[in-house]
Amino acid sequence: MSGAETADRAGRQIRVGLDVGGTKIDAVAVDGSGDILGRIRRSTGWGDDAVVESIVMAVTALADETGFPVSDIGSVGIGIPGLVDVAEGRVDHAVNLGVKSLDLAARAERMLGIPFRVENDVKAAALGAAVLSGVAGSMAYLNLGTGVAAGIVIDGRIWRGSRGTAGEVGHISVDPHGRLCGCGQLGCIETFCGGGALAKAWGRPGALPIRDIFDAADAGDAHASTLRDDLYHGAAAAVRILVLSADVETVVIGGGLTALGARLEDGIRTALHAGAEASPFMRSLRLDERIELLSAGSPAAAFGAALVGASVPEKEIVPHG
Amino acid sequence: MSGAETADRAGRQIRVGLDVGGTKIDAVAVDGSGDILGRIRRSTGWGDDAVVESIVMAVTALADETGFPVSDIGSVGIGIPGLVDVAEGRVDHAVNLGVKSLDLAARAERMLGIPFRVENDVKAAALGAAVLSGVAGSMAYLNLGTGVAAGIVIDGRIWRGSRGTAGEVGHISVDPHGRLCGCGQLGCIETFCGGGALAKAWGRPGALPIRDIFDAADAGDAHASTLRDDLYHGAAAAVRILVLSADVETVVIGGGLTALGARLEDGIRTALHAGAEASPFMRSLRLDERIELLSAGSPAAAFGAALVGASVPEKEIVPHG
Repeated sequence: MSGAETADRAGRQIRVGLDVGGTKIDAVAVDGSGDILGRIRRSTGWGDDAVVESIVMAVTALADETGFPVSDIGSVGIGIPGLVDVAEGRVDHAVNLGVKSLDLAARAERMLGIPFRVENDVKAAALGAAVLSGVAGSMAYLNLGTGVAAGIVIDGRIWRGSRGTAGEVGHISVDPHGRLCGCGQLGCIETFCGGGALAKAWGRPGALPIRDIFDAADAGDAHASTLRDDLYHGAAAAVRILVLSADVETVVIGGGLTALGARLEDGIRTALHAGAEASPFMRSLRLDERIELLSAGSPAAAFGAALVGASVPEKEIVPHG
Repeated sequence: MSGAETADRAGRQIRVGLDVGGTKIDAVAVDGSGDILGRIRRSTGWGDDAVVESIVMAVTALADETGFPVSDIGSVGIGIPGLVDVAEGRVDHAVNLGVKSLDLAARAERMLGIPFRVENDVKAAALGAAVLSGVAGSMAYLNLGTGVAAGIVIDGRIWRGSRGTAGEVGHISVDPHGRLCGCGQLGCIETFCGGGALAKAWGRPGALPIRDIFDAADAGDAHASTLRDDLYHGAAAAVRILVLSADVETVVIGGGLTALGARLEDGIRTALHAGAEASPFMRSLRLDERIELLSAGSPAAAFGAALVGASVPEKEIVPHG
């Protein structure tokens, strides 16, 4: 525990949350009543030192632009991809950030004198989405980005499970004859609805390959139409699995693919509806009514990180993300 | 709440548990330290009245054969298939018992003057398996019988989820081109490893169709060999899903198919091992080391029902099973 963490926190009401992605850091400042006071985006550095520096820079820039001193910050929470050791504040194997093994919380704390906590990005986003969506009880947050993963939140707490694989639905195979997944298995959900897998299957250059697929499908391209159906099918399968195994009440969908907005949401809803048509049991679950899409640009991930930063550790285990 | 439940329970140390199946009731008497004092099996009646009567008869016969008066019984727990309303002690749609809607706890209490509690059979068995297997933390109980379902137990408590579908892995599709399931979907896990679906696919008469399939496969029959592989594949898929969604530490396998013993266990283990071979991520989960098979004839289901009977209701929701 750092000196900052045991220091008097009177007056330190501001909680900062950072969602650290492969290219951007999304940072928010949250006050004691949960209102977002300020938000900025900064580039993410590459490699251990640059990642720590870009995080510290994002915190100080957020304070500066929002108009409060860094000393008013009571806690900083970081959502970051990779294997996160919550108790130690470490992150390992964050491949997209060039990080092999980083003592992130301790290094950032040393630089700013504020307590830092680190959480897997999808789990932090799940917590933020649960609070921002006003979901009580149980929910899953399904992140459709380059990869696919989910986080489960029950009664306002991140569900960790026994070894940190809770919500790892991206690597459940739903087709023994499906495409080869990066993980080595065939037909994983991620091969159907992961942005990376779809862009690879599409195979044409472009800055926004998934949007290109949707536009080409609208224009009648058969290959694009198949891939778009795969996306709907994979996301619907993930929703079904989350309800039929963990039995969450609501599935909130977030991640980069939400930039597709209603085109994505309507398609997943239709796939869920169509999949239930022949099955009274599945119809009774009303899955198409139990999904919600976060708006593109939602601060849920950074907001969830701020909640994580302000929380007291519950359990000392190593989540995998 | 019945009069019996509020009566003085001093001296009433014996807890009775009943696992009510389509043909047999398995009943155990458990003392205050969790030891099984006696166990009997009786036929299950068909229809509301006969089901209640056969349950009451099983309780009195158990007391008689074990050598204690019915008045020494502090509680009775019943594990029964169908839609169970735990709070009300009701069971609906227990198709295999000829029960449409039955006020089971109240009717049995009226007849014996002892408090009854009712739970879905797979959930009760999950609790019993967790305690008898000495599993701490989180576990799933995967029931391979005519159908396929799982129950999840976390820190000694049945995980209910939001609408009672937690552990309903039997109706997750893992093959879009698979066999038609009784539920109306294609390629459900139950079509791969449910005893009913396999017997139907085998299509030859016999009292023990799954054993026949295994014997024919051993003798070189190609169709039987495919069906046996399907069984291993489906059970392995269920184990993967339970770990990758709810992240349970251990999966205990029970149900009628455990009569196959090591032939079943080794096959599932091999399927898990083979499925992970190409995937470092899946290998890291060591799933083949995280399954356990209950011995055939294990009293886990009735024992779990006894635990349910002695417990205080936590939450008033309607589980589906």
